[in-house]
Parts: sequence; structure tokens; C-alpha cells
Amino acid sequence: MNNFTFYSPTLFAFGDGEEQNTGALVRRFGGTKVLMVYGGGSIKRNGAYDDAAASLRAAGIPWVELGGVQPNPRSGKVYEGIELCRREGVDFILAVGGGSAIDTAKAIGVGVPYDGDFWDFFSKQAAEKTVPVGVVLTLSATGSEASDSSVITLEGENLKWGNIKSDIYRPVFAVMNPRYTCSLPAYQTASGATDMLSHIMERYFTPTEHVDVTDRLCEGLMKTILTAAPKALADPSDYNARADLMWAGMLAHNNLCGVGRRQDWASHQIEHELSALYDCAHGAGLAVVTPAWMTYVMDRDIARFAQFAVRVFGCEMDFHQPENTARAGVERLVAWLRSIGMPTTFAEIGARAEDIPALVAHRAKKPGAFPFGGFTPIHEDDMTAILELAAR
Amino acid sequence: MNNFTFYSPTLFAFGDGEEQNTGALVRRFGGTKVLMVYGGGSIKRNGAYDDAAASLRAAGIPWVELGGVQPNPRSGKVYEGIELCRREGVDFILAVGGGSAIDTAKAIGVGVPYDGDFWDFFSKQAAEKTVPVGVVLTLSATGSEASDSSVITLEGENLKWGNIKSDIYRPVFAVMNPRYTCSLPAYQTASGATDMLSHIMERYFTPTEHVDVTDRLCEGLMKTILTAAPKALADPSDYNARADLMWAGMLAHNNLCGVGRRQDWASHQIEHELSALYDCAHGAGLAVVTPAWMTYVMDRDIARFAQFAVRVFGCEMDFHQPENTARAGVERLVAWLRSIGMPTTFAEIGARAEDIPALVAHRAKKPGAFPFGGFTPIHEDDMTAILELAAR
Repeated sequence: MNNFTFYSPTLFAFGDGEEQNTGALVRRFGGTKVLMVYGGGSIKRNGAYDDAAASLRAAGIPWVELGGVQPNPRSGKVYEGIELCRREGVDFILAVGGGSAIDTAKAIGVGVPYDGDFWDFFSKQAAEKTVPVGVVLTLSATGSEASDSSVITLEGENLKWGNIKSDIYRPVFAVMNPRYTCSLPAYQTASGATDMLSHIMERYFTPTEHVDVTDRLCEGLMKTILTAAPKALADPSDYNARADLMWAGMLAHNNLCGVGRRQDWASHQIEHELSALYDCAHGAGLAVVTPAWMTYVMDRDIARFAQFAVRVFGCEMDFHQPENTARAGVERLVAWLRSIGMPTTFAEIGARAEDIPALVAHRAKKPGAFPFGGFTPIHEDDMTAILELAAR
Repeated sequence: MNNFTFYSPTLFAFGDGEEQNTGALVRRFGGTKVLMVYGGGSIKRNGAYDDAAASLRAAGIPWVELGGVQPNPRSGKVYEGIELCRREGVDFILAVGGGSAIDTAKAIGVGVPYDGDFWDFFSKQAAEKTVPVGVVLTLSATGSEASDSSVITLEGENLKWGNIKSDIYRPVFAVMNPRYTCSLPAYQTASGATDMLSHIMERYFTPTEHVDVTDRLCEGLMKTILTAAPKALADPSDYNARADLMWAGMLAHNNLCGVGRRQDWASHQIEHELSALYDCAHGAGLAVVTPAWMTYVMDRDIARFAQFAVRVFGCEMDFHQPENTARAGVERLVAWLRSIGMPTTFAEIGARAEDIPALVAHRAKKPGAFPFGGFTPIHEDDMTAILELAAR
């Protein structure tokens, strides 16, 4: 096990009805005037907007609003939010929604007390101060409600995206009512489950030895997701399945599963190129890339992939030819992804084999683009080979 | 899953060498003058004392000391510490050691800013303020380094003990170097592992339904302990086994495993009577009581005990007679406890069957003594029956 620092100071208020504490929580963490950040109409349809407004009102906390945040959130809304906070004297930011609203709130938070351009924190320096951010979560997927990161796309410069990481970005509280997620479309539920599964797998596949305790936590959470997602799809109003997914999604990305080990993140890196070019859902891109990545890299540590197959998917161990077990794990993962309605082929996300050179070339334009991946280094030819496997 | 609040804002600095950050962490959390609280000579032998002193010195932070805290820590040291903090203008308390030093530090912390008797917080009211407490952990067992509780014995009044719970008691940081635990005697290592296993089992055996995600986390941590403890006993210097135990011990009791479910704690309650009368190690008492409690109550939910047997101990499921599986789980637990050198019989801890009425009567003197236990209510005759099972 490697040395690590783990600091997850977010307060979680979890369960149906906990949204009534939103205003009191804002006050507990020092807020007297709020910027409420959200996306489109879903929070107005599922009641989250009205509930948050009622709770702020009951606590006597005035607020201003920034709506219309889009998936893969853009810098434009961040600049708009910073300006609004300064003009209105906002001292607390409340994101109501999923990862896009939360990531936008985080970026606004560090931008408000900073004289320069907020993008500096996404490109060259660490933030030291932030306006506190609270969350009312309405979607289980990104884990941003407790994570130390934010991903924003800079408009204008060929849609360059930045991903920052620091404990300063951890929200001070997250209100998590699984009921809000019961109205999610099936595809979004499945994409979210795939995203959280991937957040764990990116940590699980590590070259670090002797990480038993985190392996066990990863495996337990992955098994929870494998069981809960089909239940939520079979009966969208299954509160307990929604609750399992919501709590697992948080734990998948607050780094409890990743401490003390080198992490991978190669599948995420490759997926970013797919969703940039084809505008597919992040979870869908991951469903296509991850099995291909596994197949390509498993020879580096067959034992770990066999362990994954046996412990997570209940495969029988082939003690004499563990590579058979490792491969069976990938097959079971693909079958599970298909069972929840995820695409697993290039064609299903509108991707084309002939675009592979362009996908790799686009990646190559980034500074320090290759190699990437903590499990095993992925060079340009490796990325090409993985995409070719995915395109089959 | 029940609604819950989870707030674990402790910063963990984990790994060999992290003790060098102690002084900087004290400063980060506002400390300018420290009370160092510790027990006997072990922290002088294992280097933890010298390391903490060196780090405080390097950070330019002066300190005063309160040594000599004993196992099952007493109120006398708390009063002494409060007095010392006030006299010396201390604004940060650093516990160096295990649960006794930490619990004492927590009680001193709330006592310093309070005009009345600190015992008020253990008997009748909630604390609202505390001097911040940091920890350098040298023993994996109680989980007090991140828990929201403190247990102190009040001297003078027939050794009454108090157990308080509130997020205010969570330390602001915990430095966790597994290397410090490599010099622990085997019996203390085994007792600590038993204590942390029990912290999980007290949460695992619940009447709350649909708690899959926390079940899986509990099972993963229990399996980690079952594997790591024998390794640490076979080779006391096995850093990775010590690291697994240290991290699992924290997670066993910061309540990550207990959220959203009713918890039990009956075995702990019964054990307190054993260790009060016979002065046995807490872990040893738990090793004797827990299997008896399991045998006595399993009929209330055979499925859960069978799940424990299959998932934690790898027992074969008897699908037609699951009670056989449930019983096999208890047998495997007893065998494991014996394998790590724990007592599992009354005789081995110096207890006697003829004392059972006195043990139950002593419990009965407490206000609201019966029934207790969240899995199933334990009345006087139940406690008698459990102790009789343990005495066989």
C-alpha cells in the first residue's frame, strides 16, 4: 500500500425528505445569500427545484439563480456565475442537479474570490480559496457531490477541457434524496451506473501490490452496482435500488476506493476523445472503451483480472489457465452492460473505425498526451490498438 | 435503507513517514500550543513519542504533556488535562497512542471551553464546542481516531462509565503509520482485530432491510481483517498486513458501515459487564460473548446469518436448511478467533458460570438497562441465556 492523504469532509444528508434541511445546512456552513446553479427542466419536473426553494425560503436565505447549465459544462456559464455572485454579494453556491451543475458551481466557487481568470485554476495554478459549495443531488453518476474535482470545457479554443483536482473542490454538504432519481430515463440511469462502475474500475486496476482493503471495498461497491442498476431499470421507482446506486456512486468517486494505490484512468482518457467527436454519453463511451482496454492490457497482470472476474462477477476460477477466467470476466462485463441497455460497439455510438487515426491524432495534440494510464502506459499505438478492438 | 447523516471530516495522513507531517497538520488546524496526551512507555519504545516531538519542534509549536493514561481511561486524567490546558493556554490537543489516549483527549477537548464539569457531557447534555483534537495512532483497534465517540470511566462512583457520541468528537486529523503497530504483542494485535471485527458485526446484524451497499462494505472489511490479522501475527513486521488492519480498523468505526441501518451493540453491552468484573481485554470479552449472542439470536433472521457465513467465511450454502449454514458461520468465527489466539470460553477469561446472576444484576442497576440491542431486544432472561451459552 502506498502512502496517502484522504480528506472527505463533506456532510451527507441522505434519504427521502432530507432536502428539507437544505436551508439549514446552507446556514450551518455560513451561507447568507445563495447562488442556485442548475441545468434544464428536470429539477423543475422532479420537484427538486421547488423543494430547494422552499427550504431556502423557510431558512430565510435569499438567492439568485443560474439555470441552463448543459451536459459537459462550459466556461460561459462559469463566467456568468462569477459575475452574478459578485454583483449580488453571494457567499454560498448551491448546485441542484448532477455533475454538470456541481462542476459549474465548483468552478464559480474558486473564481469569485480570484482577481484573474478562473481558467487559470484549470490550466496552471492551484486555487487557495473558494466560496463554499453545497449540493442537492438529483442524478447518480459522476460522484461530483463529494469528489475533489471539476471538469469544465473552455469555449472558443476548440473546446479544450480542463480537469482540476484538489480537496478545496469538495462540497461542504450534499443532500442526497434517491427519490429524485426515480424519474430518470432508463438510458440515463444505465449511463450513470456505467460511469460509477468505471470510476471504481479505474482505481481497481492498479500496478500497486498489497491493496487488499481497498480491493475489497471496490469489489463490494461494484457488486452493489451490478445488482442495483438492473433493479432500478426493472422498476424505476424502486427506492432501495436508487438509494444503493446513489450512495455507491458517491463512494465510487470520493476516492475511498483509490487511496494507497496507483490509479489508471486510461479508459476515461480514451473515452473523452469519443465523446468529443461523437457527442455520445460519457457512460456509453466508457461501455465501449473499457472492455477493449481490459482485453488489451490484461496480460500485464492476469491474476488481477482473474480476481476481478471471480470476486465481482462470480466466474469460476480456471486455476490452470487463469487467462480464461480473466477473459470470462470481460465477457460477463459486456453481457451486463448490454443487459442494462448500454452500447458496447463502435457502431452503436455512431463511431467509425476509419476515424481512429483522427481520434489518436486529436489526443496527440495535447501537451504530454502520451503515454497515459497508471496501470500500464498507453502510447499512441496502444490507443490505436484499443480503439481497433473496440471497433470490431 | 433508513435516512442518515454521515459526516467524517477527519483528514487522514496514512503511511510510513507521515508522522513527519504532524506539526504541519497541527498548524493547519489552527494549533499554536499543544497538549500531548499519551499512555505508558510503548510510544517511547516504538518511536512515536520522539517522532511527534521532533515534528512539533520542527514546526515551532511548543507543547506540554499529559502521560500515564491507562486502558479504560479514567476521569482523573481528564480533569488533570483540562486544568493543564487552561493553565498553559493550550489550543490544540494531540493524542499519541490508541483509544485510551484519544478518548481522554476528546473528553479534555470539550471540557476546556466549558465552565461546568466535563462529565455533564457524558451524562446529561451535548457539547457544543471543543478544542480541536489530532491523533498520532499507534494501535489498530478502537477506531477512535475517526469515530464520533469517547468512553470514559468516572472514578469514585463505583467506576461508572459514560459513552458519548457526536460529530464534535471526530478528530480533525489522524496520522496513521502502520509501522508503529509492528511492535505490538501478539495478544494485543489479536484483541484489536477482534474489536474492529466486532465494530462491523454490531452494524452488520440489523433488522433494517435493503441495506445492500453497506452489507457489501461490511463484508469486504471483515474479509480484510480475517486475512490480515493472521498475517500480522505470523510476521509482526508485515507492513501491508498492518496497513490493512489500521485502515480497516478506522473504517470499522467511523460509521461508514453503519449508515442507513439500525445497529445492534448487544455484544458490546454484555462484554462491558465481563471486562468490568474480570478486567479482561475488551477484544477477549467480545470473542467470548459474540458467538454466544449469534447462536442465541440467529433464529430471528436465519437468512442474514447464512449470508454472513457464505459471504464472509465462504461457507457452502445449505439451500434447504439455511440454519446449518448460519451455524457453520458461527463455528468458523470461533475457529478463526482461536486461530489468532483469542479466548472463546468463559474459563479462559477467568469468568465463572456462577457469576452470571451477578453480571445480569449489575447491568440491571443502570437506568434503562433492559432491553438493549438493536437487532433484537435483549431482556434480562436473554442476557442470562447468552451468558449461559458463553459459559458452556
